[in-house]
Amino acid sequence: MTDLFWPGDDRAEEHLSGASFLASMVTVEQAWLDALVAAGAAPADAALPGGLAALVGADDLAAVAGAAEASGNPVVPLLRLLRQRLETSSPAAARWLHRGLTSQDVVDTALVLGARAATARLLEHLDAAVAATAGLAERHRDAVVAGRTLTQHAVPITFGLKAAHWLAGLLDARDDLRALRFPVQVGGAAGTLAAVGLLGDAEALVAATAGSLGLEVARPWHTVRTPLTRCADALVRTTDALGHVADDVLVLARPEVGELAEPAAAGRGGSSTMPHKANPVLSVLVRRAALTTPGLAAQLHLAAAGTVDERPDGAWHTEWATLATLGRRTLAAASQSAELLAGLHVDTARMAARASAVAPDLLAEQRGLAELVGAAPLDDPTRYLGATGRIIDEVLTRAREETP
Amino acid sequence: MTDLFWPGDDRAEEHLSGASFLASMVTVEQAWLDALVAAGAAPADAALPGGLAALVGADDLAAVAGAAEASGNPVVPLLRLLRQRLETSSPAAARWLHRGLTSQDVVDTALVLGARAATARLLEHLDAAVAATAGLAERHRDAVVAGRTLTQHAVPITFGLKAAHWLAGLLDARDDLRALRFPVQVGGAAGTLAAVGLLGDAEALVAATAGSLGLEVARPWHTVRTPLTRCADALVRTTDALGHVADDVLVLARPEVGELAEPAAAGRGGSSTMPHKANPVLSVLVRRAALTTPGLAAQLHLAAAGTVDERPDGAWHTEWATLATLGRRTLAAASQSAELLAGLHVDTARMAARASAVAPDLLAEQRGLAELVGAAPLDDPTRYLGATGRIIDEVLTRAREETP
Amino acid sequence: MTDLFWPGDDRAEEHLSGASFLASMVTVEQAWLDALVAAGAAPADAALPGGLAALVGADDLAAVAGAAEASGNPVVPLLRLLRQRLETSSPAAARWLHRGLTSQDVVDTALVLGARAATARLLEHLDAAVAATAGLAERHRDAVVAGRTLTQHAVPITFGLKAAHWLAGLLDARDDLRALRFPVQVGGAAGTLAAVGLLGDAEALVAATAGSLGLEVARPWHTVRTPLTRCADALVRTTDALGHVADDVLVLARPEVGELAEPAAAGRGGSSTMPHKANPVLSVLVRRAALTTPGLAAQLHLAAAGTVDERPDGAWHTEWATLATLGRRTLAAASQSAELLAGLHVDTARMAARASAVAPDLLAEQRGLAELVGAAPLDDPTRYLGATGRIIDEVLTRAREETP
Amino acid sequence: MTDLFWPGDDRAEEHLSGASFLASMVTVEQAWLDALVAAGAAPADAALPGGLAALVGADDLAAVAGAAEASGNPVVPLLRLLRQRLETSSPAAARWLHRGLTSQDVVDTALVLGARAATARLLEHLDAAVAATAGLAERHRDAVVAGRTLTQHAVPITFGLKAAHWLAGLLDARDDLRALRFPVQVGGAAGTLAAVGLLGDAEALVAATAGSLGLEVARPWHTVRTPLTRCADALVRTTDALGHVADDVLVLARPEVGELAEPAAAGRGGSSTMPHKANPVLSVLVRRAALTTPGLAAQLHLAAAGTVDERPDGAWHTEWATLATLGRRTLAAASQSAELLAGLHVDTARMAARASAVAPDLLAEQRGLAELVGAAPLDDPTRYLGATGRIIDEVLTRAREETP
Repeated sequence: MTDLFWPGDDRAEEHLSGASFLASMVTVEQAWLDALVAAGAAPADAALPGGLAALVGADDLAAVAGAAEASGNPVVPLLRLLRQRLETSSPAAARWLHRGLTSQDVVDTALVLGARAATARLLEHLDAAVAATAGLAERHRDAVVAGRTLTQHAVPITFGLKAAHWLAGLLDARDDLRALRFPVQVGGAAGTLAAVGLLGDAEALVAATAGSLGLEVARPWHTVRTPLTRCADALVRTTDALGHVADDVLVLARPEVGELAEPAAAGRGGSSTMPHKANPVLSVLVRRAALTTPGLAAQLHLAAAGTVDERPDGAWHTEWATLATLGRRTLAAASQSAELLAGLHVDTARMAARASAVAPDLLAEQRGLAELVGAAPLDDPTRYLGATGRIIDEVLTRAREETP
Repeated sequence: MTDLFWPGDDRAEEHLSGASFLASMVTVEQAWLDALVAAGAAPADAALPGGLAALVGADDLAAVAGAAEASGNPVVPLLRLLRQRLETSSPAAARWLHRGLTSQDVVDTALVLGARAATARLLEHLDAAVAATAGLAERHRDAVVAGRTLTQHAVPITFGLKAAHWLAGLLDARDDLRALRFPVQVGGAAGTLAAVGLLGDAEALVAATAGSLGLEVARPWHTVRTPLTRCADALVRTTDALGHVADDVLVLARPEVGELAEPAAAGRGGSSTMPHKANPVLSVLVRRAALTTPGLAAQLHLAAAGTVDERPDGAWHTEWATLATLGRRTLAAASQSAELLAGLHVDTARMAARASAVAPDLLAEQRGLAELVGAAPLDDPTRYLGATGRIIDEVLTRAREETP
Repeated sequence: MTDLFWPGDDRAEEHLSGASFLASMVTVEQAWLDALVAAGAAPADAALPGGLAALVGADDLAAVAGAAEASGNPVVPLLRLLRQRLETSSPAAARWLHRGLTSQDVVDTALVLGARAATARLLEHLDAAVAATAGLAERHRDAVVAGRTLTQHAVPITFGLKAAHWLAGLLDARDDLRALRFPVQVGGAAGTLAAVGLLGDAEALVAATAGSLGLEVARPWHTVRTPLTRCADALVRTTDALGHVADDVLVLARPEVGELAEPAAAGRGGSSTMPHKANPVLSVLVRRAALTTPGLAAQLHLAAAGTVDERPDGAWHTEWATLATLGRRTLAAASQSAELLAGLHVDTARMAARASAVAPDLLAEQRGLAELVGAAPLDDPTRYLGATGRIIDEVLTRAREETP
Repeated sequence: MTDLFWPGDDRAEEHLSGASFLASMVTVEQAWLDALVAAGAAPADAALPGGLAALVGADDLAAVAGAAEASGNPVVPLLRLLRQRLETSSPAAARWLHRGLTSQDVVDTALVLGARAATARLLEHLDAAVAATAGLAERHRDAVVAGRTLTQHAVPITFGLKAAHWLAGLLDARDDLRALRFPVQVGGAAGTLAAVGLLGDAEALVAATAGSLGLEVARPWHTVRTPLTRCADALVRTTDALGHVADDVLVLARPEVGELAEPAAAGRGGSSTMPHKANPVLSVLVRRAALTTPGLAAQLHLAAAGTVDERPDGAWHTEWATLATLGRRTLAAASQSAELLAGLHVDTARMAARASAVAPDLLAEQRGLAELVGAAPLDDPTRYLGATGRIIDEVLTRAREETP
């Protein structure tokens, strides 16, 4: 899957794509059918272990999507298709399929499956980004560079410190992603599990389904959207951290600054007309993502806040595309960032040269204070680094402790 | 094209889809090449009238999209593909293709082509919605219904008045859509047309290109994004108007109110588990769109405000997917709304019965004032309608005057 | 403090108001000065225990605010004012004030103090809301009511179940609020604590300051805005939960439904012209807040993602008003919701009557399934409630366990 | 009025402040009362020309705001206060005050009065900004500077061209602001003017009121929020244009670039700790505004789309604070920008020196094309400026034509 409007989208692989959403819905129906049969709620001849997945594929995507409008969600046409295809081969399966569930159970659980897989993959990218950033912090622990505030030179820092702050952001995001929980949604028509109760032991059926899907058992959360908003918040916190890195790279890779450069790769950063160009493409694309994800997470909060009745009239329907887009953009940005950080070119000589050249500015604060405390005014920026080393060490220690 | 996450997306047809974006970029390159040849700037053997379109198609979408990351936009891989395919058949065309342009020229102009086509189609849907709504206002001019404010009964209105307000919103949106202008973007690497000037008469080449694309001649607007933000604002104003309709339908179609019902259609509004259900699906999906478009338009403003240098480092890249999504969602919502309005079932008997039943509340204001002005207190809500008729007439007159 | 544009704003008391922000900044300067003196970094005659607070008050608000533009933040004019007023009474304090800090240290720590106090107060409102909602869930455990999905009647639920879902949302929000951490910000000009190190033992000075302010010791987080985005996310999650309640009340208090009513209070819900009106004002105002907070939280994420250099050029400056507005709106909404929930009028008779009247619809699912499983079709909605009781119990148990 | 959280807020003067909102509501009530008396609808002894304004002032702000929650808007407590104070002095005025109106009429018309005044003032700032920017474009027409795309050097442009693009954005914004229309809102309880009709000739009363307020006569737009969303869109388009300027200044004022500098002013740009600092404060604060206004405009669209019934249950209530904040931030940003542009220091020597130094990069495109077209490769960037002069002239001509 690729998106011509979002270069790099293919880095998100099949996560939260239309095809994987369709497959996840089938997986949910399968798990439920299995649970019904295993519990004796449905007859043994309704069993079709793993069989539903063979019946529907990417080729059906357009048809199911196209027919989804009539019922407002894709479950009804998916069921129609499945029943049609089961009719002769397994009439019992056709008859028992989806019994006890409601559309929202299938859509929500499928979204959660997608979010869980995306989060797992995202954590791999983040782990790589964390490792690369820790390496930068360590290697450039003492590489002095001009600190800049409000675009102007401030006091000296080291590039390792900057990397340590990037790292702290990544670790915060990773904490939040790791803390996410992925609950099954089974509530039936209005969250009472009444239909399920007709079929068998509701609690056991839900537990069996959650178990086979690898999801948490949960009370119905059809009107309490915390699982999705927490996921959205963790995703946007991830792009917050990545955007911070990209923003710094974009400034420091300006030719007038020239302290950082993106990793070179054949054909990357080229222009359609200017042969000399080496655009910081990865950072540009990561920054792009970070500019858009806050609005997407806000959309999921708006949906959560707009819940009404036992299923809201529009708010729910905004969640699917929003979460999918948010997830895919975060994945792509994390993958790009991991590559960016792993190959980032750090020109410590240029950093040092500039810090020297503007030492009077970088040390203006020191001179002011020196007078007050009776210390000697400094002219070497590397001697005015305060707790830089300790801060770097603390973040590196945290990274080590939190890394398996 | 369909989107499993956005039921009804296929109503947007191919507008602003990936495939049409690709085709539009080819169209832009073709128009430019034609202009170069026609002006004698490129040799006659570079002419390839209409020929580029045959070289690239939907099958290439994935490859171009996948390769777009390296340069940060899809133009570079598209050009590589075109040049490859022209190499033997038309080396001159391969050589002259894109000369003088920059990627942003192609992307921006292609987006404008997409926006123009989408707007034209949108106006067709809006015209249908306007006609249907005018019909409702006219037919139900005198159909009394309880006015409601802050969810509670207020004073009597007529359903025709409600429809007239819907109509006024639609007409406002149509005005803004009609006022949109669609400028070509040709500026070259940094908006100076310097490369174009090497090739020939820049002004004439731009004019010829704009002419053949049916776009307005324009100064480069690579850093002045008004054409896109005005378009976004008009689109969101459209869904504002449509969302207003949907919200009213959703309230009045509640079973306890029962004054409106969505048009019946085979298989529409069904549930995966409750056979009696007739969900107001069109309104739900329109409301869904209206909840999300404000954030998309805001994203385009953020991009406009985030312009920096002669091409910004990320803001520009957020525009493409955002505009495409905004356009497609608006198109689908307008199509759904036109159908909803054309077939809306209005239960005037039930409206009248309720207005009668709650007449004491609806006329409480009148009783208060009657005392003050020495008029008789009323008990018939149809006699306390004020300027309702005049307001309806004014909106209908406006609709007639603004309809070709 | 009150806001004419935001009725109910005074429920937020002085939390995150301009005056309290000013006072908090003074508190931060005081804590720092105290720490310097206590550590022997500043001379004993710079000690001014508690004295700064007496020097600046609400009367100075306008002057400090008005002068804040020149430096881009209010710390510089605040310091000027303080030094002016200390000049004769305590020249040593004037001399040592703020030494080692940077403006961002003061602004950020003051914001954190405001956020911490607001969160503490918010938790009180939430505790009240939780208690009231648990009461509703308990009392109305068995009160049957029509379940509604997509605005239409679905299957029966009980009002206790609806309240239990409200409660689950509130508990989720409370969890997130309770988990918030409030770190001190002391980093100096560019986060290295270099100036602090000139004065004394940086680590000890930071710890002492954090200790006296009751904040967590922390590494500088001037470029890692997680403390603020986590706070924002928890706040918006709170209004998500409150908005859900308000939305349900607004639907169920419609006169045609009439199943809920807001608590009556003298003069509340009146209209300027219609004497009979009893508008659900609390719910309207809570819903209002919930519609706006997602955008505010998104703004804080955008700021976090827009971090660049050692202090960003605009992103940081968007945080202050945004966080203050977000906090105050959440506080007001929580206070209003606690009152709403405590006094909510539940018309169980009307709920039961309607459920009876529409029993054929509410039991349509049951009839369909009954046939399949060989059960008897029901006609009494109170007998088709599935796991309703168990779900309520689980949420109530959670509430009890999580309540001190 | 000042806002400690938003340095520079006082540049917005009293526009859209709480006090001016209160005063505007009184003005609306006065205009209506005058119209009633003038038309003979109210008795002559209810006349109180200009008298209401003397009865309520800024001192009442807190009381009215505090009491506004009970009715959900400030009109009811304002009326209570006015009637109380009129009781003995003019019982007839007390009796006739507000008759025929509803709260929304007063709130909406007061907001429109505020928006109109703010827009008028904004246009003054914009005129100043336009004049200053036109001056920059003219003076620096030929001042060569490195064009930059995606942060990297592209082809040469002139600083005049950059200024011309800034100017084009400002002119676009000014067009939209000038096109705004400011309609009166008089509809009564549910937009039918029924109560007004009881009192007299509704059309004439509305016209008289609009006339005395200097607003446009309009049909009720209580559910069609186009007047507000158009205003919001024009405001955000203004900050889009201003943000673009600020972003460019912030990059070009970086010490490593050093091509622009903010106007110096005593005490501006200082740091609380670093004596050498000259922060580009105006640009930082303008950029800050531009980062937040898109979300505010989106909020007004969300309100427009969330209209339901004859007055929505929360959406309307989000508009007041949102519009006020949006308006004030835009005013402050425009005032800051006008000052920034008028005093902007342009270091053309440094621009030229850099352009020379990086000429090989800036001319890489030219060299590539030169070969193709048989032209000589250039080494002087001032000779590769294409249509730069013509584009500047076109924008300057537009500015002159559109300037009174």
